[in-house]
Amino acid sequence: MSAAYYGDEAPIAALATDGAQGALDLIRVSGKGSPELFAPCFSRREKLQRSGGNVLIHGWIRDSGGAPLDEVMLSVFRSPRSYTGEDALDISCHGGGRAARSILKRLRELGFRDALRGEFTFRAFMHGKLDLTRCEAVMELVSSKTELSLKKAAGRLSGLLYAEIKEIKELLLEALTGTELLLDYSEDDGALSGASGLPGREAAEAALLRLEALAASYARERLCQEGALIVIAGRPNAGKSSLFNYLLREDRSIVTEIPGTTRDWIEAWVSIGGIPVRLADTAGFRNPRDQVEQQGIERSRELIARSDLTLYLVDGSEGMGESDRDFLRSLGCMAHNGGKAVSQGEVPVLVVWNKIDKAKPPSGPQEEMIGISAKTGEGIAELEKAVIAALSSEAGNEDAAPGIAAERQKLLVDRAIASLTEALAFADTGGPLDLAAPLLRDSVDALGEISGEVSTADILDAMFSRFCVGK
Amino acid sequence: MSAAYYGDEAPIAALATDGAQGALDLIRVSGKGSPELFAPCFSRREKLQRSGGNVLIHGWIRDSGGAPLDEVMLSVFRSPRSYTGEDALDISCHGGGRAARSILKRLRELGFRDALRGEFTFRAFMHGKLDLTRCEAVMELVSSKTELSLKKAAGRLSGLLYAEIKEIKELLLEALTGTELLLDYSEDDGALSGASGLPGREAAEAALLRLEALAASYARERLCQEGALIVIAGRPNAGKSSLFNYLLREDRSIVTEIPGTTRDWIEAWVSIGGIPVRLADTAGFRNPRDQVEQQGIERSRELIARSDLTLYLVDGSEGMGESDRDFLRSLGCMAHNGGKAVSQGEVPVLVVWNKIDKAKPPSGPQEEMIGISAKTGEGIAELEKAVIAALSSEAGNEDAAPGIAAERQKLLVDRAIASLTEALAFADTGGPLDLAAPLLRDSVDALGEISGEVSTADILDAMFSRFCVGK
Repeated sequence: MSAAYYGDEAPIAALATDGAQGALDLIRVSGKGSPELFAPCFSRREKLQRSGGNVLIHGWIRDSGGAPLDEVMLSVFRSPRSYTGEDALDISCHGGGRAARSILKRLRELGFRDALRGEFTFRAFMHGKLDLTRCEAVMELVSSKTELSLKKAAGRLSGLLYAEIKEIKELLLEALTGTELLLDYSEDDGALSGASGLPGREAAEAALLRLEALAASYARERLCQEGALIVIAGRPNAGKSSLFNYLLREDRSIVTEIPGTTRDWIEAWVSIGGIPVRLADTAGFRNPRDQVEQQGIERSRELIARSDLTLYLVDGSEGMGESDRDFLRSLGCMAHNGGKAVSQGEVPVLVVWNKIDKAKPPSGPQEEMIGISAKTGEGIAELEKAVIAALSSEAGNEDAAPGIAAERQKLLVDRAIASLTEALAFADTGGPLDLAAPLLRDSVDALGEISGEVSTADILDAMFSRFCVGK
Repeated sequence: MSAAYYGDEAPIAALATDGAQGALDLIRVSGKGSPELFAPCFSRREKLQRSGGNVLIHGWIRDSGGAPLDEVMLSVFRSPRSYTGEDALDISCHGGGRAARSILKRLRELGFRDALRGEFTFRAFMHGKLDLTRCEAVMELVSSKTELSLKKAAGRLSGLLYAEIKEIKELLLEALTGTELLLDYSEDDGALSGASGLPGREAAEAALLRLEALAASYARERLCQEGALIVIAGRPNAGKSSLFNYLLREDRSIVTEIPGTTRDWIEAWVSIGGIPVRLADTAGFRNPRDQVEQQGIERSRELIARSDLTLYLVDGSEGMGESDRDFLRSLGCMAHNGGKAVSQGEVPVLVVWNKIDKAKPPSGPQEEMIGISAKTGEGIAELEKAVIAALSSEAGNEDAAPGIAAERQKLLVDRAIASLTEALAFADTGGPLDLAAPLLRDSVDALGEISGEVSTADILDAMFSRFCVGK
């Protein structure tokens, strides 16, 4: 038996839910004729075989000896009206995993093979149900941590990015076909100079602006999907844990505490302005008493070096001390930064004056910092705004402008920009148009790769194998 | 706002899957008019409102501002053709939990309240879709650990136990109505003697036999649902870990390794002959070198005392030594037990001769034990048979005879048996039939409580609150 591969068209089955907790589990089945292949284990075989698509059938799944395995609800889909575009079944069975595993075993007996990662979505792509931007949006949706990330991904799944790419491609095609026409009908057989102007130049320039907007969206969209690592640092008793706990309590959409981290810091996912933030509360920085403490401080420093932002807490009841200044200096930061993140030495730090309920921060341009009280909550809203601003001026942006979140998309947008820019430069310098045309063609192709009109098996394998099973 | 309670008929919603891992999540919605209550957030509102039952509708769920939250597949059910018997929806959305949580939040805005534990099944019961034996089977199915447990629970869900209870009740009613008729039409107004015989006595006796069979099934059915704790003990190097690992590798239906246990033993769920077994591999018993080791041995002894069975491994290459005998004696066991579990001191132990590939166990009636090799697998099948026999002579029984697995059912069957036995004794001793009649009535009522024809709100609350949410 040869190994399974994407595109072999075999009937496939997979558990689409967790299979551990929960009242129900869901098994997905897809492939030509799969309802008929499934029918022998189903109590209402004839009803199933007669049924059209988009129909629900209640019944029992039986083992090879006819004993009942589970009572299920079947969703029957007929090609092309299904997720994959093939005949398909969703089997909703009892949860806890045991029923699902026994049913999957039964499905293997009947000739279904276990689906590969992302194979349902792969098939949806192959049958023209989803373009690649929507396939990537599916994966983004499943891994979304905040409601904002969910909405951004849902926007892409609804075709927002696909439509933008399509429109940009049409602008480019306008320029490309104009140029090719000119070349075809030109009397001069040789090098047609760009001096006469690139046909459709206006369209090409409009395309360039929109491509640059897409490229610029990448940082904020990626931040929204992947999240940021923010470290809380400061001397012992500066109130690090109080701030950590305050942000956790405040955020009703906490995703999860992160297990298995070392004792040098604790972590949790919180949402700050819709951005998923992996928040780490480090051990206090002070003169280490022993080797173990020294190592803890070193690991915290490494964490800070990897962070997207560090909140350095000053104990307001004691004021900014020499050890605070030492630490900030060691990170390559100025001690006072007017509430703005500085990234000298590439470590962005916000200096935060805590315990504002006990002592106000010193005023004056050199001493301006964000004042908060992790006890009363005063100033926390301002801190969150400053955090968002420090991470990205647009990250919390709820507007529905199309954006790109996948690295694959970013590389292709960059390629389209590079080729288009070069083509425009050719025309500007009066270069031959028959050299500009292939560059325009390449930028069109790059956009075709984003939506998947142009794609190779290698690209597809690499992409879908990053999905989870059952998707 | 008053607190939610079972039976308030509010429209309810709950996540029926895990909401953490998985490609898809499933949200259940139930209550009169719930499709219409849901419609405002759905992209194909009119299609939904026009739709009949057992229909699938693909569409988008939108937030209050109209932004897309997720692309979903709706299963539409119309009363009474649904799990609960009410109008209902199953919403299949993208997995990972974030989409499901955002949709649940949206449902709350629309007026759905979070479902209580087991509330969907409670409503199914209240609307006559499931009797109580089937409701309990639902819970058993979800918590099943082996395929055998699943099949036993599925049998009950398919109505096997319900039908048995119904037939027994009919037999009892035959005796009861006969007795009541006799009392009604009797010329003698006073005490009608049982000496003239209990009418329908044959039916009553047949009912008693079947009730006793049900009562006897409890131990094996419960074992099959809840599983048994089996401890592997023995001196260091007797091969405990080898046997543990062999049983784990052999069993393709391993449920899970159990985390968070102490270092004194490791545990995993395995299936032995269809019975879910929580298998514990203890530290070796030897002369403890220090306080810590001593404590570990004490904890292992406590585990053995709580176990359903202990497998005591003898190192065949060294033979049964004095420390083996000491240990077995300390458990109150005979050192040699012919491969059968002994339970003097209430600790059933199977003595197992390991490393049979190196040395055969001594023969002779006093020395007979099960010989295995945890290395080659020789003798393991015999060991498994002996384990099943020691746990219950019938536990691995795959036959489809109806059985009871819930304690509630057992108590009611016992009550029916007690009342019926007393009624028969009355008749035997020539007691007055008007005292026998209420006893027969009570045994009928007890059976009515099993299926739920006779039930009180208290019983129902206590029962359904043990379910999981979404069931």
